[in-house]
Amino acid sequence: MRTRPLKVALLGCGVVGSEVARIMTTHADDLAARIGAPVELAGVAVRRPGKVREGIDPSLVTTDATALVKRGDIDVVVEVIGGIEPARTLITTAFEHGASVVSANKALLAQDGAALHAAAERNGKDLYYEAAVAGAIPLIRPLRESLAGDKVNRVLGIVNGTTNFILDKMDSTGAGYQEALDEATALGYAEADPTADVEGFDAAAKAAILAGIAFHTRVRLDDVYREGMTEVTAADFRSAREMGCTIKLLAICERSKDGASVTARVHPAMIPLTHPLASVRGAYNAVFVESDAAGQLMFYGPGAGGSPTASAVLGDLVAVCRNRRGGATGPGESAYADLTVSPMGEVVTRYHISLDVADKPGVLAQVATVFAEHGVSIDTVRQQGKDGEASLVVVTHRASDASLSGTVEALRKLDTVRGVASIMRVEGE
Amino acid sequence: MRTRPLKVALLGCGVVGSEVARIMTTHADDLAARIGAPVELAGVAVRRPGKVREGIDPSLVTTDATALVKRGDIDVVVEVIGGIEPARTLITTAFEHGASVVSANKALLAQDGAALHAAAERNGKDLYYEAAVAGAIPLIRPLRESLAGDKVNRVLGIVNGTTNFILDKMDSTGAGYQEALDEATALGYAEADPTADVEGFDAAAKAAILAGIAFHTRVRLDDVYREGMTEVTAADFRSAREMGCTIKLLAICERSKDGASVTARVHPAMIPLTHPLASVRGAYNAVFVESDAAGQLMFYGPGAGGSPTASAVLGDLVAVCRNRRGGATGPGESAYADLTVSPMGEVVTRYHISLDVADKPGVLAQVATVFAEHGVSIDTVRQQGKDGEASLVVVTHRASDASLSGTVEALRKLDTVRGVASIMRVEGE
Ligand SMILES: NC(=O)c1ccc[n+]([C@@H]2O[C@H](COP(=O)([O-])OP(=O)(O)OC[C@H]3O[C@@H](n4cnc5c(N)ncnc54)[C@H](OP(=O)(O)O)[C@@H]3O)[C@@H](O)[C@H]2O)c1
Ligand SMILES: NC(=O)c1ccc[n+]([C@@H]2O[C@H](COP(=O)([O-])OP(=O)(O)OC[C@H]3O[C@@H](n4cnc5c(N)ncnc54)[C@H](OP(=O)(O)O)[C@@H]3O)[C@@H](O)[C@H]2O)c1
Repeated sequence: MRTRPLKVALLGCGVVGSEVARIMTTHADDLAARIGAPVELAGVAVRRPGKVREGIDPSLVTTDATALVKRGDIDVVVEVIGGIEPARTLITTAFEHGASVVSANKALLAQDGAALHAAAERNGKDLYYEAAVAGAIPLIRPLRESLAGDKVNRVLGIVNGTTNFILDKMDSTGAGYQEALDEATALGYAEADPTADVEGFDAAAKAAILAGIAFHTRVRLDDVYREGMTEVTAADFRSAREMGCTIKLLAICERSKDGASVTARVHPAMIPLTHPLASVRGAYNAVFVESDAAGQLMFYGPGAGGSPTASAVLGDLVAVCRNRRGGATGPGESAYADLTVSPMGEVVTRYHISLDVADKPGVLAQVATVFAEHGVSIDTVRQQGKDGEASLVVVTHRASDASLSGTVEALRKLDTVRGVASIMRVEGE
Repeated sequence: MRTRPLKVALLGCGVVGSEVARIMTTHADDLAARIGAPVELAGVAVRRPGKVREGIDPSLVTTDATALVKRGDIDVVVEVIGGIEPARTLITTAFEHGASVVSANKALLAQDGAALHAAAERNGKDLYYEAAVAGAIPLIRPLRESLAGDKVNRVLGIVNGTTNFILDKMDSTGAGYQEALDEATALGYAEADPTADVEGFDAAAKAAILAGIAFHTRVRLDDVYREGMTEVTAADFRSAREMGCTIKLLAICERSKDGASVTARVHPAMIPLTHPLASVRGAYNAVFVESDAAGQLMFYGPGAGGSPTASAVLGDLVAVCRNRRGGATGPGESAYADLTVSPMGEVVTRYHISLDVADKPGVLAQVATVFAEHGVSIDTVRQQGKDGEASLVVVTHRASDASLSGTVEALRKLDTVRGVASIMRVEGE
């Protein structure tokens, strides 16, 4: 007896979608064995129908994605179009017409995850999106399922390959930001408009998704503090080295000590060279997770690319198909903890501050007084003279972002402080 | 309306079991929210009933594990006794009496996994054992579910914390094996009888489980080639350094190029310092996975310890409870690929061989001839004179283990070869 094949509608057939289609064909037997039934590509929605697509039966191609998801015989819709609309409406329509959904769309999930999860639940369907965070790296499933009996306290991740490539280049060659960006662009690691990556928008979307899953609460994109890495300089890397650190663009999701609130943020930060994240090279991603019982875990791998991302999509596809055959659904949104998301001012961390100061006696005392007045305790200070001017490098103990901001504002008003050359958070200790 | 609580029977309340019980109490609300129903500890089977067990209601404690699993009202049996019997019979009995099972028992799973899976399937129950491989590190779920749409070609893992601690110590301090073992014992990283760890038995059990899951085939413990690390010397570490390598005890599971067969083995090996596994320090574990679509992934974390292992057990417990509430079961054994497991002789890798040779002309030519006659191609040779004797370090290109063994046997017969000081495989390139 031949089992009824499961029908898959593919929305989008670009970098990721074309790889999904390819693997569905080349690995058809394996997929069938793992699911317990064959999977069949039932339709492919694209924008440009005329484009030659290797390995895709042209009779399956349509520009009418809406009609495809409304067909009623589709078991799983794989959404790899990207962006907010029409992806959002297509996914909701898919649920309403009986399909489960696998998506790689971080922007949409970060913005509208709650509503999409609600739509899935209302219709008794699955919504899976392992590929939306850190490409091929299994992260959502481990956080949601493997750590379901544990309490996650912190997630610290390199979740954008483009910026990690650029920062790694700056670190290893001493190049400046622009030079490293140019190389990333030439090698195809950065897009023509790199804004989403270098300004941290992409990482912020992933931080929102990760924080929500890790802490079983809802974290909206707007809740994520975001700072890009375009202002990181070669001098910052030299300062980092002097502290035994390197600089990474990190997505950091933390539970407060009392457990009642969480924070989520994206910014460049110094981390010790001994930290496992420090040795994540090139365009690789890695996410470090700290939990009560498990301790410190790290997940490492390629964070993007057609074929790695397709691997994650297909893992979800197999799970959703298996659920469907078993008449069940997998874990849905888990937001029961309903925690407050605190603003950036309440984040507590350490800081590395470089000041250009007048080279006269008493400056250090003045500066130290300002730190003390704002309750920011100093760990180390290093003074360096350079051509009449001097520079002062202050590394603080843990302090709130609000206190630090207050300190910096007051420092800027000192006559003896010519400028604040850089402020960088220090993480991972 | 209060949902019916799920009843859990805990078999064993030692290092792992006591942590499972503790977290079930302290995190009861979180577990209930994530499962959708409360979980209740219904009984705890131990050997010594009189022992004081903090946080455990004495009325739950029993020495009659069989009666506990036969009660009929148990939803999930958590087996953390260890060893083959009575664990095996208890698990089978549990399935027959309506319970699903979560186990941390690598020895049993490696030896009897197929029979236990069959018993689970026969009774429509779940058998989960994330904790059996690399403690807290999510590995079985990612391999089985996240990579279900991909094709894994290689798994390369540091899966024993004791031996990694010893090797790391030898590497960082120049200590010999015995000295490093003594320190591991003193610090509680090695047991009084360290045989299972240092002879690679523990890692071999994990290799069998990993290979089976990664390649969707059955790999028995006997199929795993095993070599301990008791003969690794400080001199080996010096040789490794000269090659830009370190030495790790690796569990290696590989699919052959043609895809028709697999191999699984455990032995010490040199790996390049640039490989992500090289920087896994102390008692940490890490598993590197190479697949067709995802590329290179690594999973890192604590491989043992009561609380990390309990984290993995509880993740499984939540999953099994969720399945039970949904009237479904999770993925069972997947051995459809039914691949041949090839013997060690067919493994192809590189080798680092140190020979003590007579310090006379023509020795290198003789040695090189022996390699050539056995079809083993030489990558580099380094000759070093020391007090009339000389040493010859040969690094080969990829060759089969059988050819290499033949080569070594022939080398030993040469008059000019005084001894084979060491043979070490070179991996991770
Ligand atoms: N690329 C990666 O490495 C990566 C990694 C992780 C996650 N993702 C996510 O995966 C998703 C897809 O990314 P991608 O890189 O594959 O994008 P892409 O290469 O730009 O492909 C987008 C596809 O969607 C189709 N499309 C666009 N608008 C459409 C519409 N209105 N109706 C039907 N089809 C439409 C396009 O059709 P045409 O082919 O006709 O233009 C194209 O096939 C995004 O959410 C992205 O964030 C990508
Ligand atoms: N420890 C780790 O770090 C770790 C890591 C990964 C996996 N594991 C696995 O987890 C399992 C448990 O390890 P563990 O370290 O927790 O062992 P353990 O500390 O020796 O505890 C074993 C428990 O089983 C009980 N027990 C022994 N024989 C019994 C019997 N016949 N009937 C009922 N109870 C019995 C013991 O009772 P008493 O308390 O009365 O002696 C004890 O509570 C093993 O399979 C091990 O391989 C352990």
